[in-house]
Amino acid sequence: MIRYRARWVVPIASPPIANGVVAVERDLIAYVGPSDGGPSGHDHDLGDVVLLPGLVNAHCHLELTAMRGFLEDLDFRRWILRLTNARRAVLDREALLDSARYGLEEGVRAGITAYADTCESGVVMQAMREAGVRGVMYQEVFGPDPVQCAESIAGLREKVGGLRYLETPLVRVGISPHAPYTVSDELFRAATELAREQRLPMAIHIAEGELERRLVVEGEGAFADGLRRRGIAVAPRAASPIELLAKLGVLDVAPLLIHCVRVDRRDVEAIAKSGSSVAHCPASNAKLGHGIAPLAELLAAGVPVGLGSDSMASNNRMDLLEEARLALLAQRTRLGSSEAPSAADVLELATIGGAKAIGLDSVAGTLDVGKQADLAAFALDSHAPTHDPIAAAVFSITGGRARFVCVAGRMLLQDGELVSSRAGLGLRMQSLADALGEWLDSGGETQGVV
Amino acid sequence: MIRYRARWVVPIASPPIANGVVAVERDLIAYVGPSDGGPSGHDHDLGDVVLLPGLVNAHCHLELTAMRGFLEDLDFRRWILRLTNARRAVLDREALLDSARYGLEEGVRAGITAYADTCESGVVMQAMREAGVRGVMYQEVFGPDPVQCAESIAGLREKVGGLRYLETPLVRVGISPHAPYTVSDELFRAATELAREQRLPMAIHIAEGELERRLVVEGEGAFADGLRRRGIAVAPRAASPIELLAKLGVLDVAPLLIHCVRVDRRDVEAIAKSGSSVAHCPASNAKLGHGIAPLAELLAAGVPVGLGSDSMASNNRMDLLEEARLALLAQRTRLGSSEAPSAADVLELATIGGAKAIGLDSVAGTLDVGKQADLAAFALDSHAPTHDPIAAAVFSITGGRARFVCVAGRMLLQDGELVSSRAGLGLRMQSLADALGEWLDSGGETQGVV
Repeated sequence: MIRYRARWVVPIASPPIANGVVAVERDLIAYVGPSDGGPSGHDHDLGDVVLLPGLVNAHCHLELTAMRGFLEDLDFRRWILRLTNARRAVLDREALLDSARYGLEEGVRAGITAYADTCESGVVMQAMREAGVRGVMYQEVFGPDPVQCAESIAGLREKVGGLRYLETPLVRVGISPHAPYTVSDELFRAATELAREQRLPMAIHIAEGELERRLVVEGEGAFADGLRRRGIAVAPRAASPIELLAKLGVLDVAPLLIHCVRVDRRDVEAIAKSGSSVAHCPASNAKLGHGIAPLAELLAAGVPVGLGSDSMASNNRMDLLEEARLALLAQRTRLGSSEAPSAADVLELATIGGAKAIGLDSVAGTLDVGKQADLAAFALDSHAPTHDPIAAAVFSITGGRARFVCVAGRMLLQDGELVSSRAGLGLRMQSLADALGEWLDSGGETQGVV
Repeated sequence: MIRYRARWVVPIASPPIANGVVAVERDLIAYVGPSDGGPSGHDHDLGDVVLLPGLVNAHCHLELTAMRGFLEDLDFRRWILRLTNARRAVLDREALLDSARYGLEEGVRAGITAYADTCESGVVMQAMREAGVRGVMYQEVFGPDPVQCAESIAGLREKVGGLRYLETPLVRVGISPHAPYTVSDELFRAATELAREQRLPMAIHIAEGELERRLVVEGEGAFADGLRRRGIAVAPRAASPIELLAKLGVLDVAPLLIHCVRVDRRDVEAIAKSGSSVAHCPASNAKLGHGIAPLAELLAAGVPVGLGSDSMASNNRMDLLEEARLALLAQRTRLGSSEAPSAADVLELATIGGAKAIGLDSVAGTLDVGKQADLAAFALDSHAPTHDPIAAAVFSITGGRARFVCVAGRMLLQDGELVSSRAGLGLRMQSLADALGEWLDSGGETQGVV
């Protein structure tokens, strides 16, 4: 039994405890309460920290970490085309794996213990296993042309078959038909069928921006033009992206809906009724100019919402406490301070909200006896005074400051340092960055899909 | 001669230099360029960092650092009343001085070398001198009742007289008639006259939120009700807060206008025409629910704009790189990605923009030969890869990560540690927090102005 002592313990599901302790027996939480109570054991004093449940990143693309800063100031279609072309041309499997490993090191340093990752290459299963974190890797599938559907779904089925051998108690596989501008209606239906058949969790990028809305609702705009240039027929598909998913039966399997910026009242109702959950990505939505998602309305409708960093190509940092702060600031901007979520509300999103959104709430997301010991502690020292540890976590400290992290009782970060770090990974990232830069300088962008 | 070498040198006024050096002779910059050039001297390798001009905080209230987290989730009028009453009841001069000292330690750790501080007690002059930073302290003056005017201005004149003895080449004094809801038209006029007479820089909180607008334009709302309860006559004063300042002649002395959230096209023109500057505070504006200032329009009109953290009671962190990122994210949210300022634009705001706004651009704000050696370096190591040091500074790293800071050539931070730090200041902050909490619990809030 190890007793982790902290200036503040914030269990999320119950009020903060000053001078608290979380006792851990193997992989489980055995006690949460004042430090003068609980079972005896070895004391580990974490000091002047706020100790939280490990944070849950409800949406990321770990394999894209090498693209941080490579895609600045592009409109959304150019952004996604450069990303796709560069990934295919420059980043081989080993590069993508290193990229995911580096992203996980960053995530653990930021106190993130669980990851919902959408991944094209499939490398993230291995990277999460190596890192000792918890998570779901949603294998992506693409195919905007209906004639590709059978081939795409066969490929997906094969990949998933291979990936399931890598599942562990911590890490599982899901699928992700990418988005309406890269997936045909046929492929959405077929992927949903596969999810149902194999009981796989599913995630979809949806209702993110205006170009996507125009494609779905009007069959026009830059995405529509691009598809037509590739010989793919385009017509209006539904009254909204969410209605498209409803109509195709996709919502019936209650997927994780990533973004949901452009959703109206009817869309929110449809999401809530279906039991689907949402990954809210405030930094990415703002940085790409997509706007502010109706977070308050989604929460009021009872939708499980988690916070996502999105990829390092669209953020460019992985810091869930910062996402919580941005979520709050954006809603206060939109609604004023009385209608917007509170600091406690957004800290819930970063923990139990994310856990609910990705189906891990029975084992993670709060500090409760019997749950898995996924913990993250953040230093308060240079952020005095602390009137309220929840306000401090959201407004004052940043996730970059994690002092201590464990997953299922296994320590991954101690005294602010990773317990094990892969030598040379930072340099490897930089050489990948150089290779991406050379590809760009040599006109690579004009080669692939344009 | 010391040659500070860095992976990236970002002079702001000229393109980034890979493997650059900034050579410093005493208090001045003697060379900025590639590390294989420049004068000989002692090499100081700062490593894998981006080296910037020291950041400029165009608006803060350092004496309020002890109130971090003490004023969460209050509407704006209650927020300002609790702040004012608690400050008067609980924080004596020594407490406010410690609070300012602690705020400056935080600021230096965040790479901030120059401060535009609005201060009621006057302690910040001493705190800035002790810390070795550059700045302007604007002595605040209050008085919503016209009958108080003569007394208020006499008091201000006396305080300024005492403070001018504390001026140094680094630190100077200014004045700040606080805001339209705490300052009568008479006092605005008298303060402007004093500024003109003594050539004092002036700063004003203006056009921040809806309650202020209603007071000025309609003579109604919670601020108006509060003033009437104190027996002060209230009537509509102008078509907008900026028009009020124009009408009273305040804009004629080209003050620093703090906030400017609620400004329309005509207000922007009036600000630009007067040569006034703006302190833009995106985190504070969002957190207090005031909305998004028209930053893009102010910049397009040629207004000098700096970034301000505002007080720790309304932010709650002092991190100018984070303010730069928030400024960009908020404008992209408002305008989409093509119309909004770029990363380079907002990094300018955090450096030369702020320096212009507070009249320090001839000595600070860029890395140029002959300017004062105010430098700040930020670690890149855990934020690889770096395609572009400007995007990295704005999006990836945070100001909490400063590795090295000097002001006028004097080193204040080395290897991420303060060169000199006041013992026990963090604990003192915490005991002040406890005292504030006790005051609140014992009903102190109901005593003063309500």
